Amino acid sequence: MAKPDQDALFEYVLRLGDNTLVLGHRVSEWCGVAPVLEEDIALANTALDLIGQTQMWLGLAGEVEGKGRTADDLAFLRDAWDFRNLLMIERPNGDFGHTLLRQFLFDAFQVLNLKALESSSDDRIAEIAVKARKEAAYHLDRSRDTVIALGDGTAESHKRMQDALNLLWSYVGEMFVSDDVDAAMVKAKVAPDPASLRNDWDAIVLPAMEEATLEVPDSDFAHKGGKNGARHTEHLGHMLAQMQFLQRAYPGATW
Amino acid sequence: MAKPDQDALFEYVLRLGDNTLVLGHRVSEWCGVAPVLEEDIALANTALDLIGQTQMWLGLAGEVEGKGRTADDLAFLRDAWDFRNLLMIERPNGDFGHTLLRQFLFDAFQVLNLKALESSSDDRIAEIAVKARKEAAYHLDRSRDTVIALGDGTAESHKRMQDALNLLWSYVGEMFVSDDVDAAMVKAKVAPDPASLRNDWDAIVLPAMEEATLEVPDSDFAHKGGKNGARHTEHLGHMLAQMQFLQRAYPGATW
Repeated sequence: MAKPDQDALFEYVLRLGDNTLVLGHRVSEWCGVAPVLEEDIALANTALDLIGQTQMWLGLAGEVEGKGRTADDLAFLRDAWDFRNLLMIERPNGDFGHTLLRQFLFDAFQVLNLKALESSSDDRIAEIAVKARKEAAYHLDRSRDTVIALGDGTAESHKRMQDALNLLWSYVGEMFVSDDVDAAMVKAKVAPDPASLRNDWDAIVLPAMEEATLEVPDSDFAHKGGKNGARHTEHLGHMLAQMQFLQRAYPGATW
Repeated sequence: MAKPDQDALFEYVLRLGDNTLVLGHRVSEWCGVAPVLEEDIALANTALDLIGQTQMWLGLAGEVEGKGRTADDLAFLRDAWDFRNLLMIERPNGDFGHTLLRQFLFDAFQVLNLKALESSSDDRIAEIAVKARKEAAYHLDRSRDTVIALGDGTAESHKRMQDALNLLWSYVGEMFVSDDVDAAMVKAKVAPDPASLRNDWDAIVLPAMEEATLEVPDSDFAHKGGKNGARHTEHLGHMLAQMQFLQRAYPGATW
């Protein structure tokens, strides 16, 4: 089997790392301000898992690129247009329910993708996927339970979850878009076609929405441009300004 | 008359420049999102005036310091602990009424201070004060009218203005605190004792509050630490991360 195009592989691994980096940072914003102590700790742990995975994905991306960039370089010294995360991930957290619904929609995708990546033809990717899937599966259990509890909760929590779903639904489609990078990965048996994961994702998400008494919007409009870097939202730049301040203001600073 | 201590003079001018810089940036955050078009343009103009004054004050500060730092260096390459603005100024904007009330409380102080600075023994300061007071007087007219209109407006606008006054009042006292730097300026006839401006400030602000049907809190508790740099709020760091991103990420970038 032919080795995949290394530029495409770099791009693909960057997408994996940018998703966990950007979502990890967003989730970390809840640290100290979550509604109850247990959720505060749970969210901090989720953020730590995601940042840990980022270290592995972006470390590998730097290795594939072969220009000597470390995971830290890629995290802290790129500007918005060089990020390859999904648009859904970079949006502001909104309220607690909104954050957990976004987490659930992403976790369901992530678990399926990581499961497929466990048999990647690239051993390095397969190895990271095995580690990351255990954490992702645990995140999915938690976010699923919370989304159901809040959706099928009080009138206020139900309303907020329905509002969140209405808003986030238009960001779901981007997870399943396939492009040239994906095609190159599929061809080299590095990664699955994202579009092929949609049925299994529906099988996780739709029953949970029903249990949560939430109505899935009847629309397949999808915001796009994050994963391929064509167009990020204004929120990413603001997030990076905060996230990168230390390395930007004190270049090369270490603990 | 003895020349003032140059370190104290640097510190004093920095305070003037940091107040206009930080407030100017905060006001600029309304650009494009103010409630009506005319106010949007008015706020953008106010921000521009304040940034223009910053250019003069921080330019002079760099000259006094004598280490070759430009106004831009001082604005974009200092971290939070080196800022000398009032705490009231760095707080988030809140709603439109909150922003305008903060503006009014500051404008009243600023006009009085600039008026006194017009007869500074330091010609450079006197010259900037003459230019800046014309703008500040205009800002004061506008912020005063708006505060009265909103305070004596609908039940909702009145409530919001009273909430804003209750919150902002504890930040008023810092404007009138005198310290060693002020004492050195008074001695060299560079600047007035801030405490000496309080009666005239009351004479501007209290009647306006009455006309706005707002009740001035019966408390003289004052948050302190911005003007002398001892303790800024968390908000300043977040603001600087946004404000300084470009120069931090692209050092030396010019138009």
